[in-house]
Amino acid sequence: MQQKPVIAVVGAGPGIGEAVARRFAAEGYVTALLARTEKKLQSICQRIEADFGPGISQYYLTDVRVEKQIISSFDAIRAQLGPVQVLVYNAGARRVNGRTILDTATEEFESFTKINLFGAFWSSKCALPDMLTTGRGTIIFTGATGSLRGMSGLSSFSPGKFGLRSLAQILTREYQSKGIHTAHVIIDGPVDGELIGGVKRRQWRRDGESEKLEEVDAYVVQPNDIAQTYWYLHSQPRSTWTQELDVRAQREPMFSKF
Amino acid sequence: MQQKPVIAVVGAGPGIGEAVARRFAAEGYVTALLARTEKKLQSICQRIEADFGPGISQYYLTDVRVEKQIISSFDAIRAQLGPVQVLVYNAGARRVNGRTILDTATEEFESFTKINLFGAFWSSKCALPDMLTTGRGTIIFTGATGSLRGMSGLSSFSPGKFGLRSLAQILTREYQSKGIHTAHVIIDGPVDGELIGGVKRRQWRRDGESEKLEEVDAYVVQPNDIAQTYWYLHSQPRSTWTQELDVRAQREPMFSKF
Amino acid sequence: MQQKPVIAVVGAGPGIGEAVARRFAAEGYVTALLARTEKKLQSICQRIEADFGPGISQYYLTDVRVEKQIISSFDAIRAQLGPVQVLVYNAGARRVNGRTILDTATEEFESFTKINLFGAFWSSKCALPDMLTTGRGTIIFTGATGSLRGMSGLSSFSPGKFGLRSLAQILTREYQSKGIHTAHVIIDGPVDGELIGGVKRRQWRRDGESEKLEEVDAYVVQPNDIAQTYWYLHSQPRSTWTQELDVRAQREPMFSKF
Amino acid sequence: MQQKPVIAVVGAGPGIGEAVARRFAAEGYVTALLARTEKKLQSICQRIEADFGPGISQYYLTDVRVEKQIISSFDAIRAQLGPVQVLVYNAGARRVNGRTILDTATEEFESFTKINLFGAFWSSKCALPDMLTTGRGTIIFTGATGSLRGMSGLSSFSPGKFGLRSLAQILTREYQSKGIHTAHVIIDGPVDGELIGGVKRRQWRRDGESEKLEEVDAYVVQPNDIAQTYWYLHSQPRSTWTQELDVRAQREPMFSKF
Repeated sequence: MQQKPVIAVVGAGPGIGEAVARRFAAEGYVTALLARTEKKLQSICQRIEADFGPGISQYYLTDVRVEKQIISSFDAIRAQLGPVQVLVYNAGARRVNGRTILDTATEEFESFTKINLFGAFWSSKCALPDMLTTGRGTIIFTGATGSLRGMSGLSSFSPGKFGLRSLAQILTREYQSKGIHTAHVIIDGPVDGELIGGVKRRQWRRDGESEKLEEVDAYVVQPNDIAQTYWYLHSQPRSTWTQELDVRAQREPMFSKF
Repeated sequence: MQQKPVIAVVGAGPGIGEAVARRFAAEGYVTALLARTEKKLQSICQRIEADFGPGISQYYLTDVRVEKQIISSFDAIRAQLGPVQVLVYNAGARRVNGRTILDTATEEFESFTKINLFGAFWSSKCALPDMLTTGRGTIIFTGATGSLRGMSGLSSFSPGKFGLRSLAQILTREYQSKGIHTAHVIIDGPVDGELIGGVKRRQWRRDGESEKLEEVDAYVVQPNDIAQTYWYLHSQPRSTWTQELDVRAQREPMFSKF
Repeated sequence: MQQKPVIAVVGAGPGIGEAVARRFAAEGYVTALLARTEKKLQSICQRIEADFGPGISQYYLTDVRVEKQIISSFDAIRAQLGPVQVLVYNAGARRVNGRTILDTATEEFESFTKINLFGAFWSSKCALPDMLTTGRGTIIFTGATGSLRGMSGLSSFSPGKFGLRSLAQILTREYQSKGIHTAHVIIDGPVDGELIGGVKRRQWRRDGESEKLEEVDAYVVQPNDIAQTYWYLHSQPRSTWTQELDVRAQREPMFSKF
Repeated sequence: MQQKPVIAVVGAGPGIGEAVARRFAAEGYVTALLARTEKKLQSICQRIEADFGPGISQYYLTDVRVEKQIISSFDAIRAQLGPVQVLVYNAGARRVNGRTILDTATEEFESFTKINLFGAFWSSKCALPDMLTTGRGTIIFTGATGSLRGMSGLSSFSPGKFGLRSLAQILTREYQSKGIHTAHVIIDGPVDGELIGGVKRRQWRRDGESEKLEEVDAYVVQPNDIAQTYWYLHSQPRSTWTQELDVRAQREPMFSKF
């Protein structure tokens, strides 16, 4: 097992995080999953191991707002699985129903900004040394429409996401020439899953929009397809490394990003 | 042969254009190549057919600055090969040693802007109707660093490229919901080939930079890798369509784009 | 009169163009107005001279799509009024009710792009030499929301405006160190005037929106205020020259630009 | 004195902060200065009062990284001077000689991000209620080249500045229609002052660049000119409110921003 390359997915929920882990597991990677809720992590690891074999997925309980916990988890990954070759920072926190700045509690602003930005800084610091030693590595950050535009109601989300984008650019400028490929992926629209997908599907069912129900992927971003995007970025030849790309569903009505 | 899907590559030189055509030919596409120089077109078609079989590549002499010629070529493609499923607009004109605005002739400004922008407008108008009829299509425009930043010496190049980027966004907003995926690719750095690659290689040889000579792909964008990027964009599932991405060589020293 | 500094306003209609000319006339500038419709130009010149004295405003019939006409007009300005110190390129053409690319005639695309972009290239080439000789000059381009985002229905407008923005950046990079200040102003929202202001006012009257009628300036950009912005840009000290700024009405509901 | 309008300058050092306070004092504003170093604040207040009269300038010792201190200071301002009409957030922290992410201490990242971003969030929350009550207010944030581009060596600076720009956009979208004008000013280049101006002047003296010494303002941004920019933004009529502009010195060689 020590021979297998290692991917660390920080912010490993049942949506994008799990899908990314599965995609890399399918390519022979050991997947280290970092998140806060043990029960969810256990389920994800069990599902991945059921499909890709025992030992292919380990979880590390981590509150990404706390640097020490990130350091401990990466130390454990290194000791148990080996050096991290791929870092995906997918942790993110946002309020579904946005509030104005005046109605946004300081606690939320601080907590979310730590999740959206600080955790990525700390995770990068943990993953970079091994990447520099081996002269190779991939770092992918999950961005959003709010990474590019400060929209109403997003004061606890957007500043951290803007900052995350800046961090991806700095990582590129500082470490790309040393063999580390950093990419920032702007997911421009709702991602299918328990929350958003479910809400939309219920709404479509209620409105009798059977066509939409049948082709959800035209309206909502699919985690498996994002995972494929991340795999593509990781496997790009070094003559054509992408620093930033956006993705959205074909019938996403807003095209908010550009 | 009529059953095979068709890709039209406008601006089909021996660099990116040929590489894209070969990549799609390898997937079973018939490739229609549009450019101005018959001799080059013949060579490219012969090389493609040598590798992928007879009839797989047709060329259409076209000056992209002249709408009528574009219309004629697309009419001929439709008649001979069938409806175009993929349009790659790769035509571009720039001066290697930039001049100031005062030293840029009006003829050059007009001619280059027609190549960089107008031809894409006309080509899109030719390709869209069949795409709308079949409810599917991919349009890819080749952009550059100069698509994002108006740099010194680029007055005959950059305005057209900025405009081309605008056109890609408009195509997305107007036609993506109808099944047509438009993407804008920013190639941020020199592309390997006769001109730039050769110049750099001679310089590296002169300077004794043997390491660079051995790993050109770390310093210069490779046409085959761009072609793979275009294929990736075309094959994206519709839940995650990319509107814009950038590519650069790993050791490209400028990182001009972002 | 020869002693007075000269501003050339290209695209001098009764809205922004006239307002800019008046603002500079109030500061002692001779105003050269370039546009296509003699009757409108005559009225504007008469109004300006009525307020600021005889000889303060001259017009030059010019179709900005034709380089020769631009050259002739600038030659005449130089001979009659002296070297141009300030160039405002305000010519612009757009369709109020946007059409898709397929429904946009080539003639419109070409004609509008020449107005939106080519005329600015030619006007700059005409104005630069005197500015370089005197070591001072200001060039201001009128941009729009469509200069930054390729929106649906704007294929005959937005590519040219994107290109105009590129040209402003190139002018800055090539000539700012030589004393020429170029600025690009993004007007993000409808400008008050015959067309848009009138339509909105009629609508507000119909809807009984008396509050809006009384404070039009909160909802619609005022030409006189744009003129003040242009004057401000021209009078900036050289330690703080602005390359780009945006303006919008306080209650503009879209905030389209950013 | 209670009748005079109040401006709060957060991050009130002897450079931009003092210059802004003086500019508004000259227009009859009472200036509340917030910063961490009492001695500097005292000097600034004394200089302002010497020129504009007693009581025109008050200081409030504040560590902008601590929300409670910001709240206390704004409470005191409100009680002593009246409601804040203008908020300028000018606090910023950056390392002159940038370090890579791996060499950037967590303490620095956290501390600087709080100064560059969090303090602006808290200050806005303190200033907004009075502005909403009176239906008028101006908020100006000081940005930098690093607000737009994540450059090498800026990992403790740029993410916070990106976030600050996002916050300015959100403030605009949430509160502009209610009469509060928010603007983000990108200062693209070094600002004259003790540190940068002095270093450059010494270097120019050493190199015998007497011409540059005589026209420092062509090479380095002047605080007084930034102050004038801020006054201009505050006095814009509501038909043409600017959300973002950049400033740079005429001979700034980099033009880093765009």
